[in-house]
Formats: sequence, structure tokens, C-alpha cells
Amino acid sequence: MEKKELARLEIWKQLALHAAGFDAPERHLRHLTQDPQRLAHFSASGGGLFLDLSRQRLDHKAMELLVKLARQRDVMPKMRQMATGATVNTTENRSALHMAARDFSGSAIAVSGADVMPEIRRVRDEIRRFAADVHDGRVVGSTGKRFADVVVIGIGGSYLGTEFVAEALKADAVEGVRLHFLSNVDIHCFGRIADAIDPERTLWVVISKSFTTAETMANAAQARAYMQEKGLDPSRHTVAVTAKGSPGDDGRQPALAVFHMFDFIGGRYSVTSAVGGVPLSLLFGYERFERFLKGAEEMDRHVLTAAEDQNLPLLAALTSLWNHNFLGYTAGAIIPYAAPLHKLAPHIQQLNMESNGKSATADGRLLDVETGPFLFGEPGTNAQHSFFQLAHQGRAFPIEFIGVLQPQPAYRGYAHRSRGVSNHQELYANLVAQAQALALGRDGDEAARRFTGNRPSTTILLNELSPENIGRLLAFYEAKTVMEGFLWGINPFDQFGVELGKQLAAGIREKMAAMNADPAATFDDLDPISRHYLERLFAAAK
Amino acid sequence: MEKKELARLEIWKQLALHAAGFDAPERHLRHLTQDPQRLAHFSASGGGLFLDLSRQRLDHKAMELLVKLARQRDVMPKMRQMATGATVNTTENRSALHMAARDFSGSAIAVSGADVMPEIRRVRDEIRRFAADVHDGRVVGSTGKRFADVVVIGIGGSYLGTEFVAEALKADAVEGVRLHFLSNVDIHCFGRIADAIDPERTLWVVISKSFTTAETMANAAQARAYMQEKGLDPSRHTVAVTAKGSPGDDGRQPALAVFHMFDFIGGRYSVTSAVGGVPLSLLFGYERFERFLKGAEEMDRHVLTAAEDQNLPLLAALTSLWNHNFLGYTAGAIIPYAAPLHKLAPHIQQLNMESNGKSATADGRLLDVETGPFLFGEPGTNAQHSFFQLAHQGRAFPIEFIGVLQPQPAYRGYAHRSRGVSNHQELYANLVAQAQALALGRDGDEAARRFTGNRPSTTILLNELSPENIGRLLAFYEAKTVMEGFLWGINPFDQFGVELGKQLAAGIREKMAAMNADPAATFDDLDPISRHYLERLFAAAK
Repeated sequence: MEKKELARLEIWKQLALHAAGFDAPERHLRHLTQDPQRLAHFSASGGGLFLDLSRQRLDHKAMELLVKLARQRDVMPKMRQMATGATVNTTENRSALHMAARDFSGSAIAVSGADVMPEIRRVRDEIRRFAADVHDGRVVGSTGKRFADVVVIGIGGSYLGTEFVAEALKADAVEGVRLHFLSNVDIHCFGRIADAIDPERTLWVVISKSFTTAETMANAAQARAYMQEKGLDPSRHTVAVTAKGSPGDDGRQPALAVFHMFDFIGGRYSVTSAVGGVPLSLLFGYERFERFLKGAEEMDRHVLTAAEDQNLPLLAALTSLWNHNFLGYTAGAIIPYAAPLHKLAPHIQQLNMESNGKSATADGRLLDVETGPFLFGEPGTNAQHSFFQLAHQGRAFPIEFIGVLQPQPAYRGYAHRSRGVSNHQELYANLVAQAQALALGRDGDEAARRFTGNRPSTTILLNELSPENIGRLLAFYEAKTVMEGFLWGINPFDQFGVELGKQLAAGIREKMAAMNADPAATFDDLDPISRHYLERLFAAAK
Repeated sequence: MEKKELARLEIWKQLALHAAGFDAPERHLRHLTQDPQRLAHFSASGGGLFLDLSRQRLDHKAMELLVKLARQRDVMPKMRQMATGATVNTTENRSALHMAARDFSGSAIAVSGADVMPEIRRVRDEIRRFAADVHDGRVVGSTGKRFADVVVIGIGGSYLGTEFVAEALKADAVEGVRLHFLSNVDIHCFGRIADAIDPERTLWVVISKSFTTAETMANAAQARAYMQEKGLDPSRHTVAVTAKGSPGDDGRQPALAVFHMFDFIGGRYSVTSAVGGVPLSLLFGYERFERFLKGAEEMDRHVLTAAEDQNLPLLAALTSLWNHNFLGYTAGAIIPYAAPLHKLAPHIQQLNMESNGKSATADGRLLDVETGPFLFGEPGTNAQHSFFQLAHQGRAFPIEFIGVLQPQPAYRGYAHRSRGVSNHQELYANLVAQAQALALGRDGDEAARRFTGNRPSTTILLNELSPENIGRLLAFYEAKTVMEGFLWGINPFDQFGVELGKQLAAGIREKMAAMNADPAATFDDLDPISRHYLERLFAAAK
């Protein structure tokens, strides 16, 4: 077990010392990028992606030290242990086997001595058959009509990743199928979905590992009441994705089908399991879902086999650590120049901030350095017309740009050119220009028109927005997140930080329920601030 | 003209000194909130909203000093100068008269001696008539069909605020009208809208003050080509919102109607002008748009007349400054517990980060303190299942919660209760619980289950999501943003920081156009990194 605190490690001190020299003018990106070999030395390809760190504030020495840190922190051995079923989620005594969900190698992966792959393959087969049955009209609603609207009821890890993939690959949707996400318990969300769907042709997919998540259960109950009111049989309009033996799996809530999820795959890492598999296969067919899985699998192989200094997620994780722990940046943005990736940033916000927004180490001590940065993002060029003023002239923050070489085939026909270029070229020109402008800046006499430059960015390049590439991108970010956690020595798989709020909400809910049951009840035993809010809520409803 | 730098002001030093004492245990929110008068002392109502700062790390002394700072910085006099047409946008030599756009007082507001109100009223009348003509079928498409799809072509300030309001009030939409936003130049965006609309029944609203914005012009050209291909007359399917005399106003691009915008209202402050007025009136009728304006007007009156220590936007701006300049927070989140407000955070991201993400003062010097924080946000409870792990146990950041007492009438009928409470109550219980959990925290022996607390938040309360309240909320954030700018002494109305990227993109676009025109051209005179990206783009397209 690691005994030293991070900041007292010799390698950490060396990195800090090296970083301290990075304010020198000769380390400005304006100068670093003048090296004609800059791109060759600070970029790598692997797992189907291209990663360009040439506009990061890195030099060879920094990279060497960072790779050395990765070795000392056993990142690669831990990744391999994770992939082979070791109990890397130590605080919850679980494995973290999201990679197994897209493993087509045929090898066994054992948890507590038992191979998990047969179960994973069984669930994949069930999804394949069910999606085909829905698409071919063998499974229909209780009034005999084919399903057209699919409503996913799930929150956090039960929907954000799926939404990212669904939005990215919407162009491939099966004709006539529409996917909706009912995540928030807010009744406006339910109401807007009810406005948009045809209830007789709607399939509800309820996703919750425990089948006790408050929001998901409230929405599922609302949906059942709605179906009953419409004269439909809820059991013939609902499927569940849940853990074996949960209240959604024991027959108390009859459903068309139940697909299992496993405790060795955490919510935010679950897109390649049944959590993503069921909705995505219903949206664009199991075959495309499998292509997506195979892209993720390819990235996993790269993650587990590439050398440290050529390993894309590791290089990205180390760069992130360098930026946040050594150069002092507190935030980071994800800016895809590809609008179909518009839900990537919200997914990564959860994946990364929930995994690494922690102050305790995996072995139960308080960490002496900061961990997860604030992540946010919008697609370019939209972001340029929004918060990029600040990116260029305010507090600096590192950016991950994502570029795509070719638009999706469905839209290549819109070929009108403006100012001599296609829309896609215009978009790409801006991608190239922004990374350059941020890095180089521009001197000027006027303060308002001066650009300091030296603002770091990474660029990730995809050939196109295919299912495989979306899988690669997803697996890249999953691996990067886990590696950051391993570098810091925290457990990127638990989330104890959400518990206190849940417990307090349960107490307030009880007070409300008591008042609903007996209007003579009071909120007198609450603290004055909470009491004020509850009294106003009930007064407004009168 | 202000001569001292901010950090050398006596009041600034006093604030810094006072803030330095805030790490003391007796200043922990756990203790501050025990005062039974805490809420009464640190909350205020005005302009139709309720603002609760009781969970901010503030005491009476801090508030006194902050209000003193506001007075010394002449915030209120500057706001009044702004409202009456003074040239507060000094770097661009313009007024900033977004308040005039919702002024129904009948008083004159002069810019360079001329009253602008007749023009503003003229445009409002034109919008009212045009929206009614569309809704009543007096204005129809070139094949005689009524308009049903309205596509806004505009980017940044020409759409983000409108999108926020449209999403918030979608429940009020005129039957059969659907509003789409085509902002990004990404061809996927155009393609997805083309997939969703009925071209014969589509009205395109092209919004650009200069009518030269690259993305908007490319999308408008794409739309014209598309209409022509469908055999439609673009001039009978298009309206423009643009400045008088721009290329969109001079008849070169014939349109059904042209609505003027004015150089005294900047893009990100333009929602209450024709920029928001045309699309929003088409979506839910001019009458509701005017109710929205009147809510904003009410907040403006509050802004201009309330005492400093009761002035909601000023209190919020001062709290923001306190948090970011004195307590050291670098980010902030906007978390509405109201899903229809899901586009508020992207709007405020632009409004605030583009206004205040600057390092130059209005009088042309470099500022010695940090300005705009990183802003992001998602609706609660979704955010709880995403990045709130970090909010509770990672790097702290202040949060602005927004609560709503009653759901929109359209959805009150979904009344199924779970665990004894309605969905709306469940949502509200979480709002109350999160602010409390963040403030109080919880001790514990186990590092992973320890909550340090003392994490500040504001809560803004609305009675309901009415047009008036959305107007109030919008005007609140506009005023808060401008006041922050005035406190720092920067110009919150310009955005020179976006220029360098635009210029570099223009150069790259030219190279691409040359290559499109002559495939024998090369990218040899570009820097090696840009060349790499351009060569890959053109290789992929072959």
C-alpha cells in the first residue's frame, strides 16, 4: 500500500520543480510549437484515434517525468488487473469490468473464481433478439400496435452515456423509432414526453441497478398510472434493465423482458452493458450497437497493450494531471467540432467529475493534492460565440478539441459552398484556427486587443462519426478517467459523496408526506431555513 | 477615470483581510446558519423574485464592506447612466440599452439626442402584426400552406437567450408551431433540421446584426439552396432580423419581412429585442412575449430603484465577487430545479463569460485581479447524479440553485404520488436538501464518507414558470452580469477576445477555397501543424 502522500513523492517534487519553469518566455507555446518536429513528437495514434498534444504546455522532460510517475503509480498493471477482474473498486469490494461488456475475444474473465463472460454473452443475445422482435413487429403493445416511441427512464449513469451515443448516431436510427429520455423527477419532463408520444406505441425502458432510485421509481410509477389511465397494460409496455434479484427482477412488476446488469459495472461506466445496449439497439439495431462495442474493444486493447509513451488515454490522463496539479488550471473544456457529439461533455462531466471529484484515497486517507477539475463544454463553433471570449482573454483553461474528417454520409449531399468552402470545411477551419489562436496569441498595444496566448489544448481526430469511432471515443474517455484515478490513488468507481444529500432529502420527503397525509401537521421541528422553503411550497399549492 | 488598480484600493484590502478570517471554524456555514435570523438577514425579495444568500459564506461585516465597494465603484449611478442611454460601452462607443427594449413607461430615452423609443415600439408593433399574420394564415409559404416549422438561423447571442426562453415556456406554444435552432455551421445540424421539417410549411428566421456572421450566412445560403431544390421561393419563406442598412436589409436578399435590431443592444443582451421577439412571438404569440417583457421591465425597475442592500442583482453580483476574488473559488454552477430552465446555464455561460471573461479595464489597462469565473450547470436532480460527487467532496464551487413553487398548469394533472409525495415535491425536497448538505457537511471517521461542508450556495425562488417570471429571471442575470463588470471596471459589452480566432479561421478558409478551386494547390506555406490537419481533411474527402 502506498504510504507517502503524493506531494512528498520525489517524482512529484521533480514535476513541480519542472513546472515552475514554465512561465519562462522560451516555454511559451509560441516558441515550443516552432519546432518543426513538434507534432511528430507530441502526438500519437492508436485504437483508431489520433491524439495531438503539440499545443499542450509540455516538453520532452515533462513527458519523461510524467511517464515515470505513471510507472511509479503502477497505472498500467492496475489497468490490467481491472481488466481481468481484480477487486479494484476496493471501498465497495467489487471488480470494475466495463471492458468485459465489449469483450469478444472468447477468453474467460473470472470474478471470485467464476467466469462472467457467459452471462454477458447471454444478455447481449437477449438484447439482440428483443430488439429484432420489436423492429419486426413480433413484440407489440397491448393494443397490438408496433412500438415507435422508446422512453428510457433512468438517471445519471443510467442515461447520460446512452444519450451521448444515441445523439451521436441518430442518423442511423431505425425508420420510425424515436428515443426519449425521462431522467429528471421534474413533472415537466414527464409531461413533455407524454405530449410527444403515442402511448399505444410506446415502450418504456426502466433502468436502475437497485430498482430503488427515487427519481426512476417515481417516474416509472407515473408512467404506469398514465398507461392505466389510457387503458393499456403496463406489463406489456415496459422492460427493465436491473440487477438480478432486484425489485425489478423478482416478478412483482411484470414486464415484457428483464435484462440484467451486474454489480461489477458501475453506472457511469455502463454504456456498453445492457444499460446502453437495450435503448441503443432499439434505436439503431443490435448490429450497430455491436459495431459500437467493437470500437470500444479496439480501444481497450490499445489501452492494455500500448507502451506508456504511446498510450493515448494515459498520455491524456498525464497531461490532465500536469495541467491541473502542476500548472494550476482548475477547469477543462471538451469542445467537439461535431454537433452530433453535443452530449459528450455532459457524459464526461459525470464520468470524470463523479469518478475523480474526491478527497479521499482508495486506502482511506485524505489526499494532499487537488483531484478532478471542473469540466464543461459545448460544440464548436457554438462555443466560440459563447464563452470563448473568456478562453482567449480571461482565466485560462485547457481544452480538448475533437475534430472529424468527414461528415456522416446522410448529410454529405448538402454541398452548397459559402466563401468557397463547404459548411464542413468552414467548421474544420475554425477548429484548426482556435487551437492555434489560443496557443500563439497576439501582441498588441491595446489591452483589450491583446492575446496572451500560451493557452493549452489537445486535439483528438476521428475519421468519421461511425459506431466504431463513437465506441473508441467512449472507451478512450473511460480509460483516461480511470487512469487519472489510479495516478491520484483514489477509487474512481465509488461515489459516497452523493449520499448525504440523498439522506437529507429522504428526511424532507417524509415531512412532506406527513403534511400531505395530514394538513394539520407542521414543519416546526425543521431548521428555520428549510421550514421557510417547505411552508412556501405548501402555501403556493393551496 | 479610476486610477488605482483594484487590489490597491483600501476597501479591497479590507475585504481581503476580512476574507482571510473565513477559514476559522466559527465562520463555517454550520455555525453561521445556526442564527435563527440568518435567513431574514441574508435574503431579499424584489422585482418578483426571492434571493436567499443565507448559505453563502457571508457575515454582516462582509456585506457592509461589499456594499461599500459597490458605492465606491459607482455601480448604481452607472446602471442608471446605462438605462438612460449613456455611452457605457466605451470601447465601441455605444450605448447599452437592452432595458429600453422592454420599456413600456412611455418616457423618452435619448441616444445622441434622439429618442430611440419610437423605433423600438415600431419594431414591437411589426412583430405583433407579423406573428398574428402567420398564426392566422394571412402570411403563408410560396405553395400557399400555413407555416408550422420556424427555423431560427443565428449563433451565440442571436439564439442562446431565445432558446432559453423558448424551452422554459414551450408549454405555451401555439398549437402546431415548432421552433428549431440552426446555430452551428456543422452540416449535421442543417441535415437534422432538414430531416425534421416540412419545407413547404417552414419559415426561416435569419438573425445577424451585421448579416456577415460566417456561420449564419453559410446556413442561410444552405437553406436557400435547399428551398430552391424543393421548388420553393426563398423570399417567401424567410424573414430577417438585422441592423438597418445591413446586407440583409438592403433588398439584395428579398424576404417576407425585415425586423430591425440596433447597435445599442448587444447580442448577448438582445433576447428582449426583435432577436427574441420574432421567434418567441411566432412560438407562443406576441401577447405572451409582451408578458415576458413586462416581467423583465419589473426587474429593471427594481434594479434601478432598490437600495444597494436590498437590490437582488447587486447582492448576487457582490456575492459572486466575494466568492471569486476573496474566497478563491474559480467556478460557479447554475442548477435550476426546474427542467424547463435547462437552457438557462448555456445562456448565462455566454452572457457572463463573454461579458466578463476579460483582463483589460474599460479604460484600457490590464486588470490586477481575476474576473469571470467558469460557469456551467445542469438541472437538478440530474446534476446530483452527475457532477455533485465533486460538489460535495471535491474542489468546492459556489452554486446558484433555482427553485419553483408550482409546476406549469399543463402538467399539474400528473398527480401520482411515490413514497407519499408528488414528483414536484420530490424535486423540491432535493433542492432544499442539497443546499443544506453542501453547507453543513457531516463529520465522520472514514475519509470517503466525510463531508467537509461549508460549500456556499444561493437559492432563487420563483412562484411559477410564467412568462413574467422568465422575464424577471433573465433581467436579473443581465443586471448581475453588468454590475459585476462595473465592479471590476471592465466593459461588459464588448468581445474583442473572439477576433483573433475569426481572423485565423478566415486565413485557413482561404487556403481551403484555393484548394477546392485548384486541386494542384498546396498547403506548404502553412505552419506544419495546421498543414497536417488540412492535408488530412482533403485526403479523407477523396
